Amino acid sequence: MNYRLLLQYDGTDFHGWQIQSDLRTVQSELTRALSLLDGREVVVSGSGRTDAGVHAEGQVASVQLQREMTPQKLRAAINGNLPVDVRVLFAEFAPDDFHARYSARGKTYVYRIAHGQVMSPFWSRYALAEGRALDLKRMRSCAALFPGEHDWTAFSAAQTDVDSRVRTISSLDIDDGWNARGGCHLIQIKVAADGFLRYMVRSIAGTLLAVARGRIDEATVARAIHEGRRELVGPTAPAHGLTLKSVKYD
Amino acid sequence: MNYRLLLQYDGTDFHGWQIQSDLRTVQSELTRALSLLDGREVVVSGSGRTDAGVHAEGQVASVQLQREMTPQKLRAAINGNLPVDVRVLFAEFAPDDFHARYSARGKTYVYRIAHGQVMSPFWSRYALAEGRALDLKRMRSCAALFPGEHDWTAFSAAQTDVDSRVRTISSLDIDDGWNARGGCHLIQIKVAADGFLRYMVRSIAGTLLAVARGRIDEATVARAIHEGRRELVGPTAPAHGLTLKSVKYD
Repeated sequence: MNYRLLLQYDGTDFHGWQIQSDLRTVQSELTRALSLLDGREVVVSGSGRTDAGVHAEGQVASVQLQREMTPQKLRAAINGNLPVDVRVLFAEFAPDDFHARYSARGKTYVYRIAHGQVMSPFWSRYALAEGRALDLKRMRSCAALFPGEHDWTAFSAAQTDVDSRVRTISSLDIDDGWNARGGCHLIQIKVAADGFLRYMVRSIAGTLLAVARGRIDEATVARAIHEGRRELVGPTAPAHGLTLKSVKYD
Repeated sequence: MNYRLLLQYDGTDFHGWQIQSDLRTVQSELTRALSLLDGREVVVSGSGRTDAGVHAEGQVASVQLQREMTPQKLRAAINGNLPVDVRVLFAEFAPDDFHARYSARGKTYVYRIAHGQVMSPFWSRYALAEGRALDLKRMRSCAALFPGEHDWTAFSAAQTDVDSRVRTISSLDIDDGWNARGGCHLIQIKVAADGFLRYMVRSIAGTLLAVARGRIDEATVARAIHEGRRELVGPTAPAHGLTLKSVKYD
């Protein structure tokens, strides 16, 4: 039976999604819990890797199990064998041909910036602390350049194993507002695309931050997008500000 | 010079507010940081103690320093010497007779319950997980009994060193709604009073939960309030769901 799982994890103490020998990863924790349950080594597929320190509010995984059980029982059984920083929010039966990675049609990420003089203990794991002046109008104006189909070479890791670096960003929205719990101004950069290259969201976030700080101008970002020149963009923003929000399927 | 500090802390890894030999407490971390800054042992006063595991979004402390510096510099200097789970959000000069505890006129606490089958990793430190059915209408109806001046013996620790157990609850509000980030239904019990006895909010929260679960009825709670009978109330809810939101001064 094929199952689809909706997952959350606090990425702080994980070395990312993907199994790596001897390191604590989300995939290895899930594989351990599910193999125990199915009485054999199972293969857990995620919609994509998240890097060390990156969080997920809506990661999706799929797994084929020999044992048949209701999704509710499956969820309880998995959660009972997982550490508290990763949880299956929802489980359901999936068609046999469903695969969390190959069936994915798009993803949404959010990059969070806590803007203020002091980093609240309630946001320090989940948002980048930024104490310097930011021009959000400049940031928003520049953000409008991103939606569309482009080769995103300028905004990706130099070394990647993908055939094409063309992706379509369907939206890039910047929300901001006072966060009462954190006593800070919270800026959230939300990017949706049909797929992402490695470091792409963090590179876009770092570039938009550099624009908001007046270090890079909009024309330079436009050139980076159109000419694919990595040296024109801002630094890659740190992992802990990034969260995978959701994955889209047909 | 007398200073007033607005503080946040994630109580998870602290043994509460008050200095205790060899234990990691908020007061001891602040005392260490401020004594270092002032070049002598200083006394840091809080608006009140919080128990082990209880968080604060708006704790207030006062401290007399020999060294005079602008509040902004003071804040930066203290935060530079504090661990990331406690932060001074705001510092200001205070009148000489200001004392965080004796000048306090009231406090607001919030008790958070994550209601759902699964505890999100993003709430597990800050809210009580409750998976069973809750009748919020019953809970809200019962909550209306609490505002007013009463002897709160039934809702406090058996052993206390206070002279009087009479306090005035000015409001008790129950907010609830879907929390997108946590994938859970979040119930927030907000209580404001001129002062609180030890375990009072946790006892009220545990009682309201018992009412919502149909284990205690409203008439029994009314009797507990009026007759001061501790055996009639629900269990004291765990510390980690509790947060000190704010402290009121003239």
